Amino acid sequence: MILCDIGNTSYHFQTPEKNYKEDVINFNPMDIKEKVYYISVNELVQKKLSSLENWVDISDAIDMSQYYSTMGKDRIVAMESVSNAVIVDAGSAITVDIVRENIFEGGFIFPGVNAMQETYKRISPALDYVLNFDVNLEKLPKNSQDAISYGVLKLLYNEVISYRLPIILTGGDAHVLQKIFHDASVDEALIFTGMKKLIIKL
Amino acid sequence: MILCDIGNTSYHFQTPEKNYKEDVINFNPMDIKEKVYYISVNELVQKKLSSLENWVDISDAIDMSQYYSTMGKDRIVAMESVSNAVIVDAGSAITVDIVRENIFEGGFIFPGVNAMQETYKRISPALDYVLNFDVNLEKLPKNSQDAISYGVLKLLYNEVISYRLPIILTGGDAHVLQKIFHDASVDEALIFTGMKKLIIKL
Repeated sequence: MILCDIGNTSYHFQTPEKNYKEDVINFNPMDIKEKVYYISVNELVQKKLSSLENWVDISDAIDMSQYYSTMGKDRIVAMESVSNAVIVDAGSAITVDIVRENIFEGGFIFPGVNAMQETYKRISPALDYVLNFDVNLEKLPKNSQDAISYGVLKLLYNEVISYRLPIILTGGDAHVLQKIFHDASVDEALIFTGMKKLIIKL
Repeated sequence: MILCDIGNTSYHFQTPEKNYKEDVINFNPMDIKEKVYYISVNELVQKKLSSLENWVDISDAIDMSQYYSTMGKDRIVAMESVSNAVIVDAGSAITVDIVRENIFEGGFIFPGVNAMQETYKRISPALDYVLNFDVNLEKLPKNSQDAISYGVLKLLYNEVISYRLPIILTGGDAHVLQKIFHDASVDEALIFTGMKKLIIKL
């Protein structure tokens, strides 16, 4: 079975053999002839796929009653696979969703690591730094790189730990965020676990 | 006396008669013939001004011993005017600096309100919202606009109030941020107060 999670910038595939990504701009979905079960937060790609019979959108199987209509399907599918957790999905955006006793309490959206670096750079060349994931979050910064890193990482950290739930990191930047969230687990396949649960309901 | 605080996007003037801004791109500093005392975080503008005799850079009067060299001069000058405060200077970037008993404890840099809105929009058209300053920060969001607004405003709010010091808002977005920081005071002239203190030392 081929599964595919389509984000803003890439197709993320899971097959029994491997796990790989294709770029949204360069990849042609017609190159795959087998059946692909997918979810997509990318409207342009979704339009393209709707005319391809072997690409099956599994978002129809989602019970939307506790979610909201404009919510990214990837966030919902990831939540379907946990009972008690803060899910931090760190991609081009960082979505943070709280599930307690199988109930979705709500969630928020923060820009992704790359997006934040780009933002500072665009504000001023004097703020053009990569984030320092080794920044000391216990001490107020006294240099520019740490002032920016703290601004992003400490603020995100404080909010995420405030829910006092197990933290699951997923998405392309899960591993870099683990440098901040020491006690969090990384589950890169979280969304595929949720997708498999949904396919049974199709 | 003409004072001028030069940021990434504008010249901010204070004269005995008025307070006004000029755009960094369109304004020609040679149009002013009177003496202007200024500070600048904008390197390009600073280079232009260094050849003009009537534009006097007052940053030389700053005692840099407790600050760091790449720190924006505007942050330092604003701090020179307070003894105990969190200064939130909300412009193209939001700088947050902590002064306790006249000592600079450190500070961090967050992207400005407009920069954050631009960032979300650039990540995905599905995230193209203006921030909702009336978002309920006590409740996890369940719609896209609030998910973004909470991601920016709640995270910033929590960090700023954690210092348990009086909060002073300054900069172009001081008034919009007051919708979140209800107990904060707005002091748009904070930097000019600091500048006047420094001019005496020149």
